[in-house]
Amino acid sequence: MPIYSANVSERAQQPPELAISTVIFALRPDPEAGVPTLWLPLVRRTRQPFRDLWALPGGPLSPDESLQDAAARNLQETTGLQPSYLEQLYAFGGLDRSPVQRVVSIVYWALVKPDEAALARETENVRWVRADDLGQLAFDHNRIVEYALWRLRNKVEYSSIAYAFLGSTFTLAQVREVYEAVLGKQLDPANFRRQLRATPDIEPTDEYLQGGRHRPPRLYRYTGSAAQLSGSPSA
Amino acid sequence: MPIYSANVSERAQQPPELAISTVIFALRPDPEAGVPTLWLPLVRRTRQPFRDLWALPGGPLSPDESLQDAAARNLQETTGLQPSYLEQLYAFGGLDRSPVQRVVSIVYWALVKPDEAALARETENVRWVRADDLGQLAFDHNRIVEYALWRLRNKVEYSSIAYAFLGSTFTLAQVREVYEAVLGKQLDPANFRRQLRATPDIEPTDEYLQGGRHRPPRLYRYTGSAAQLSGSPSA
Repeated sequence: MPIYSANVSERAQQPPELAISTVIFALRPDPEAGVPTLWLPLVRRTRQPFRDLWALPGGPLSPDESLQDAAARNLQETTGLQPSYLEQLYAFGGLDRSPVQRVVSIVYWALVKPDEAALARETENVRWVRADDLGQLAFDHNRIVEYALWRLRNKVEYSSIAYAFLGSTFTLAQVREVYEAVLGKQLDPANFRRQLRATPDIEPTDEYLQGGRHRPPRLYRYTGSAAQLSGSPSA
Repeated sequence: MPIYSANVSERAQQPPELAISTVIFALRPDPEAGVPTLWLPLVRRTRQPFRDLWALPGGPLSPDESLQDAAARNLQETTGLQPSYLEQLYAFGGLDRSPVQRVVSIVYWALVKPDEAALARETENVRWVRADDLGQLAFDHNRIVEYALWRLRNKVEYSSIAYAFLGSTFTLAQVREVYEAVLGKQLDPANFRRQLRATPDIEPTDEYLQGGRHRPPRLYRYTGSAAQLSGSPSA
């Protein structure tokens, strides 16, 4: 097959293409159980390869755009949202990620607050799916989401990243719901409350959550800096 | 200056070049104080831009080489060493990193054990320098090393990365010397020993360090997995 051989040989000479992709996590209520669960928006591919499969938002890096700006643009174009948390995740550069040309993808991840996530657009070619029910995505994007989830689960244990999912004030039960959604397991409410009250990152406000049937729970606020949430070199 | 304008305009059209660079940390004795300190190897640039300045080992990504393989090759070619710890650090992609063409550098970091570091080659164009006394490096490489140091200092606090600097057995004092070298400060020996004995990651052996003037200290070994040290998606 001389034609195929020529293509392979040509391909080996071309410099790798550089792309930016973004994993955008938000907590949204599960339609059945009602509890918050992790969701992310996907974009339907309208071209080959992997036409009609769903993929992470992204595209080639423009010559005049920084990596972070390209990721913020992915987020803006896909969801209409500004990022509250946007950080570089990892560069994926295996030789066989795309059947057409070698592509090195620098992947960012964004966490979106619930009031923002509620505003996010959904169209025929953009839809939000549960992080634990993605189906078969284009390229190696299932693996990228798995890695992002692994990093998120790790990071929630040793950092303040959970607060990037919450509004400016929140109840202790809402913090627990973030941990439960990220870790994918139920936590003991009393133990969790005790541990959380012992951390220096949050402080009680004088306000209470209104509208429940029970005694209104107290609202807390995050007192750390936004930079503390992130691990980027410019922070 | 029409020629200059043409160049700028041409430059804005070209796709960014993709390079791999590697920050290689090892502990070596300070020549004066004798205590272990952080060092890294640098390579003298023999071409413009930044000719004759020192730079991190690296170069353009070959079409047929994975990111990790390219970083391992940087390490091999610069020092003759195989990596015991090699992990992706960050992708640096600012618009003005190089005066010639836009370059996106995916940076890896390697940690090298002392017996390996003692074998490392040094030539006219490769030299090891103290991490806290680099001088002016080419491109944004000072900033990259600063970020690598920041990540190392963070990671030593919550992970087992310190053991990547040590041999298969070590004394508790040697672990403390790693922390002191990385954190750049002296630690209280008794407190440190107590905290270290409480971690599940190490266990005592039946062997003792020979050759000192004092009572020989006991040797310990790291019991965690190599994968635990690293944060890469393939681990």
